[in-house]
Amino acid sequence: MKSFDIVSALKNNSEYIESFLSDILSCEAIGDGDLADAMRYAVLGGGKRIRAFLVMETGRIFGATPEMCVPFAAGIEMIHAYSLVHDDLPAMDNDDMRRGKPSCHKAFGEATALLAGDALLSLAFEVTAGNKNADPRSAALTAAEYGRLSGVLGMAGGQEIDLGGNAGSYDELCRMYNLKTGALICASLFAGYFAASPVPDQKIIEKLKTYGLMLGLAFQIQDDVLDVCGDEAVIGKPVGSDSKNDKHTSLAYMSVDEAIHEYEVLTDKAIDAISDIPGSESLTALALHLCKRNN
Amino acid sequence: MKSFDIVSALKNNSEYIESFLSDILSCEAIGDGDLADAMRYAVLGGGKRIRAFLVMETGRIFGATPEMCVPFAAGIEMIHAYSLVHDDLPAMDNDDMRRGKPSCHKAFGEATALLAGDALLSLAFEVTAGNKNADPRSAALTAAEYGRLSGVLGMAGGQEIDLGGNAGSYDELCRMYNLKTGALICASLFAGYFAASPVPDQKIIEKLKTYGLMLGLAFQIQDDVLDVCGDEAVIGKPVGSDSKNDKHTSLAYMSVDEAIHEYEVLTDKAIDAISDIPGSESLTALALHLCKRNN
Repeated sequence: MKSFDIVSALKNNSEYIESFLSDILSCEAIGDGDLADAMRYAVLGGGKRIRAFLVMETGRIFGATPEMCVPFAAGIEMIHAYSLVHDDLPAMDNDDMRRGKPSCHKAFGEATALLAGDALLSLAFEVTAGNKNADPRSAALTAAEYGRLSGVLGMAGGQEIDLGGNAGSYDELCRMYNLKTGALICASLFAGYFAASPVPDQKIIEKLKTYGLMLGLAFQIQDDVLDVCGDEAVIGKPVGSDSKNDKHTSLAYMSVDEAIHEYEVLTDKAIDAISDIPGSESLTALALHLCKRNN
Repeated sequence: MKSFDIVSALKNNSEYIESFLSDILSCEAIGDGDLADAMRYAVLGGGKRIRAFLVMETGRIFGATPEMCVPFAAGIEMIHAYSLVHDDLPAMDNDDMRRGKPSCHKAFGEATALLAGDALLSLAFEVTAGNKNADPRSAALTAAEYGRLSGVLGMAGGQEIDLGGNAGSYDELCRMYNLKTGALICASLFAGYFAASPVPDQKIIEKLKTYGLMLGLAFQIQDDVLDVCGDEAVIGKPVGSDSKNDKHTSLAYMSVDEAIHEYEVLTDKAIDAISDIPGSESLTALALHLCKRNN
């Protein structure tokens, strides 16, 4: 079997998504004031677009066209971007830098950054629910799932546990990682599937969910390892910043070697979960690719 | 013609909506942590539920059942509630009190209040897009309109103008009022109409839009008047608080008498816009009722 060229696929996807996002966030589309500028600043020109890739690839696997999927892909990237803007605010993690440039509130002020996050979340739903290329059932299902998985029982709930330092056991930490990261990864997979399948099959959803949660957990534990063992120039933040910030990570419960073993096992579980879905080589390749990353 | 009993109708509507909101925000539905508590605190037990009333009544007028409309009504009330939580934050208006009790961040802290607003916005879309009693086209259309009208070209955009003190003329002030208040009122009317009409008629939308914008503008100008002439015990905040907070209001451009005339004219225009829609007596009664309010 010819191996899937994940690096090229991610690059092509990233360019395609960036182009679509540039259109829906253009001055013609959303105006040219400070708020619109802050929205563009927060979304454009950054990130690996992993979530968008998951939407597009899962859609393709199940038979949807790129045009049917891309509004959902843009939607999930805007939800991800909004969450970073709000997380960086002084009342939350109080981070001055993001991806090597000033965080949104440092560039535009707190009030505008807060509103930019809010407006990105609204726009995400406008674009997702307003996807005219997909069946209305797909659009409604996807918007509802995005709402559920970004809310109190998803990403926002995970953020709350993180803020409170409430993760008092490894299981609880994994639950937080599932909510903070796994939830949006699952939402991305579901969105691609829904784009192709307006009446989804619960068995497929369960497979995608397992893949998504395992991938998210592997990703977070690998982040914990990179934070203590990574190359500062590559990971883009000081080594050891988690322990400096009193972040409770998986390394409170296991050695670095055990953690590396753990995320490799989780990656295998992710791949196993979708192994019988025809055409899922790209999702397998992504999981393996992420497992080998150094930033 | 027997006159419509708007006071009873608002009271009955408020009880119906409160009951539905209590269910979807219950501990069984969203958990019992701080974040869930803050969401309940921000939404339950307060407000006139005008926006929900507009959804329910517009739905009824065009032939939808209450069950088809109530998820949309709950959705718009949660969007309204989220906007108040974020507006009250120190980075925004920095208000310690809301409806006679501590504002959400005073009761739960800034980080949890910020997240509660975020999670309410997400839940609003989950419930709206996930409305199983309506046609999926209605659910998708409504969620997309809620996204558009709460975002950068709607409520959030109006909030940005307000923050910047950018309203430098009466026309600009009206544009801000249209965005801050009119947008969600229009969204409520559209939602009710969409619940009944999955393939909406643009001519009806235009009529509802005119009613919504005129009603919103009348409401805001009346607020300006009540701020200088109202009874503190009735309006629930100190008289003169707008000028104390350097708020630029319609009274910078006209006398109190002229402002009273202005919102009466706007109320008439609102009523005119929908006068040929059969069954719209309730919307007429609401406009007249609001015009006579003292808080």
